[in-house]
Amino acid sequence: MKTRALTSADVAEVILAVGIDRFYDELVESMTEAFAGYDPAVTMARTRDGFHYEKPDLGLLEWMPTMRLGSFACVKTVGYHPTNPVQRGLPSVVSTTALYDTATGELVALAESTLLTALRTGVASAIASDILAADRALVVGVIGCGAQAVTQLHALSRVRRIDEILAFDVDPSVAATLERRLGLSFPVTVIDEVRRRTLLRDVDLLVTCTSVDIGAGPVATDTESRPWVHVNAIGADFAGKTELPKAFLDRCAVFPDNLDQCLAEGECQQIDPASIVASLPELVRDAERFRSYQDTPTVFDSTGWALEDQVVLEVLLRHACRLNVGSSLELSTKPADPYDPYETLRR
Amino acid sequence: MKTRALTSADVAEVILAVGIDRFYDELVESMTEAFAGYDPAVTMARTRDGFHYEKPDLGLLEWMPTMRLGSFACVKTVGYHPTNPVQRGLPSVVSTTALYDTATGELVALAESTLLTALRTGVASAIASDILAADRALVVGVIGCGAQAVTQLHALSRVRRIDEILAFDVDPSVAATLERRLGLSFPVTVIDEVRRRTLLRDVDLLVTCTSVDIGAGPVATDTESRPWVHVNAIGADFAGKTELPKAFLDRCAVFPDNLDQCLAEGECQQIDPASIVASLPELVRDAERFRSYQDTPTVFDSTGWALEDQVVLEVLLRHACRLNVGSSLELSTKPADPYDPYETLRR
Repeated sequence: MKTRALTSADVAEVILAVGIDRFYDELVESMTEAFAGYDPAVTMARTRDGFHYEKPDLGLLEWMPTMRLGSFACVKTVGYHPTNPVQRGLPSVVSTTALYDTATGELVALAESTLLTALRTGVASAIASDILAADRALVVGVIGCGAQAVTQLHALSRVRRIDEILAFDVDPSVAATLERRLGLSFPVTVIDEVRRRTLLRDVDLLVTCTSVDIGAGPVATDTESRPWVHVNAIGADFAGKTELPKAFLDRCAVFPDNLDQCLAEGECQQIDPASIVASLPELVRDAERFRSYQDTPTVFDSTGWALEDQVVLEVLLRHACRLNVGSSLELSTKPADPYDPYETLRR
Repeated sequence: MKTRALTSADVAEVILAVGIDRFYDELVESMTEAFAGYDPAVTMARTRDGFHYEKPDLGLLEWMPTMRLGSFACVKTVGYHPTNPVQRGLPSVVSTTALYDTATGELVALAESTLLTALRTGVASAIASDILAADRALVVGVIGCGAQAVTQLHALSRVRRIDEILAFDVDPSVAATLERRLGLSFPVTVIDEVRRRTLLRDVDLLVTCTSVDIGAGPVATDTESRPWVHVNAIGADFAGKTELPKAFLDRCAVFPDNLDQCLAEGECQQIDPASIVASLPELVRDAERFRSYQDTPTVFDSTGWALEDQVVLEVLLRHACRLNVGSSLELSTKPADPYDPYETLRR
C-alpha cells in the first residue's frame, strides 16, 4: 500500500499551483455543495471528541472523523495549544488529516493540515456571511489578529468587498502585522482598547477569533450596533470559552455550524436554544430564504466541523494527484500470505 | 517538526534486531508493568469508537486513543475487514498508530502497526494465561488459524511449554499452513469438524481467534472439559459477535481485558455480569491471589485495549530510536511567525 504523504510544503505547492484566490473559490464551491447535499445516512460526521488537559499547559487534542459510506473515512486530528506561539514559536492550532479506504482499512493519505484547517474555517464563515451579511461593501472589525484572522478575512473578501478593517489584539504588535500577513489591498487600522469597546457600533461585520481563556470572555463589548450587523464567532471551542456578550447574542439570530458541538463548546452555550435559527447545512440548503436575515443582526457560531475537514482534504488531494505533489510512503506491502503476520520478518 | 515514520519493513527491522523471542519477552514485561501501574488519573485509555458498516463489505474502522497526562497521546486506528484475505490478499486487521506530543499537538511518530497489533494481542493473552492457565506443559487447541493464531501461540509459548497444538479452521488449507507460519518446535495437528466438536475435552488451553460472522457463533462446542481449562477468546469484537458457548462461559470465571468494551463487544455480552471476576489490570496487580484460579475453568475475554497499543508502540519506538530505524517525515517546519498561516506560500 502506498500512502500519499503531504507535508505543509507540499500543501503550499498545491495551493500555489492553483492560486490562493482560486483555491478559496473552489473551497467555497465544494463546501457549499457538501453542505447542501449533506445526508447523514451517506456521510457520517461525528462531533469531535478528545483529550482536554491542563498539563504541561492548557491544551486539547481532538479527533474529528467522517465517513462517506462505501468509500472512505477521514479523520482529522487537531491540537489547540494557546501557549504555542509565545512559548514555542508554533501555531496554536496544529493538525494532520488521515484518509482511510473503508474497503480495506488502509491509510491512503496523510496531510499536514494546519493551513487547511485555517482555510476551511475561513471558508465556512465566508459561506455563512454570503447568506447572512449585508450585501454591500463592508467595514469589518476583527478581534484577535492571529493566524485565523488572516484566513477569515481573506475568505470573506472572496464573497464581499471589504472597505476597511478595524483590528484589535490584546498584543498590539500582533495587530500591527495583520495587514502585512494578509497581503491584500484593503487597509487595516489597528484600534486600541477604547475603540474595541465600541467596535460593534462601527462595523458591518465582526470577526472574533481569539484564544481567550475559559471564563474570561466576552472579548467584544455590547453596544448599539448596525441593524444588519453580522458576526462570525470563531474562537469558542471549549466548554466555558465564549467570545460574545450574552446581551448581544440575545438580540441576534444565531446559526451554529453544528448544533450539538455549538451547544457544548460554542456561543450557543450562552443562549436560549430558541434563538438558534438553523445550522450551516440548513442555512446553505435554504439560502434564498435565509437571505432575508441580511437586514437583522446575525451570528455564525463556528466551532469547526469534521465535514469541512473532509471537503478541504478532498479538494487538496484532487489537485495533489493531478499535479503529482507529495511523497509516497510505502507503509506496507501486499503479503504473499495474508495469514502470515511474520512475512516481513523473513524477507 | 520531524515525524518518525515506521513502515512495516521498519517495524520488522527493529524486531529482527532485537530478536522476536526477546521482543515478546520485553512486551510481556512492559505490558505487565503498565497494567500493574495503571492509574486512570495519569493514563487515560478510551474504549474504542468508530464506524461500523456493511458496504462495500462488512467492516469497521476504529480509533483507540490513550494519553499519558503531561506527555503524549497515542491513537491507534484499526480496520477490521474479514473479507480482506480472500478477496484482496490483505490481512483482515490493518492498523496504524500515531503518537502526538501533548505540549504542542504535533505528530511525533507514525507506525504501521498490523504486526504490532497481532503481537500485543498475543502478549495480553500470554499475561492472562501465565496467571490463569495450569502451570504445566499444555495441549493447546486453536480455532481459527489466521494471523492472530500465530502470535497467540507464539506469545503463549514464552510463558508456558506447549506439548502439542490441535488446530481447526473452517478453511483446512489455512490450518494446514499454521505450523509453517509459526515456525516453532512443537507439532501442530490439524483437526477436522468432528474433533472440533469435542475439542474442549481434549485440551488444557483453548484459543479462539476467528472471523465468525455476527450471530453465527459459537465456534467452540460445549463439552465436558478439564477442570483447569483456560480459554483465550480473541475474536469477539463486534456487538453480536461471540465465539464461546454460553453454557461453557457460565461454568467459567471470566476475566475481561477492559470491562466496558467486553460488555459491549466481547464474550461478556453473553453472560451474567456476576461471573466476571476481574479485568486485566486487576488480574495483573493481584496476580498471586488470582493464581488460585489455575485449577478452575477460566476465560480471558480479549477485545483489545488501547493501553496495549500504547505499550507496544513505546517499546518499538525505544528500539527504533536506539537503532535509528525509520524515516523522518518533515510534516512542517517551525514558522518564522506563528501568526502567519501563509508563510509556506511565500517560500
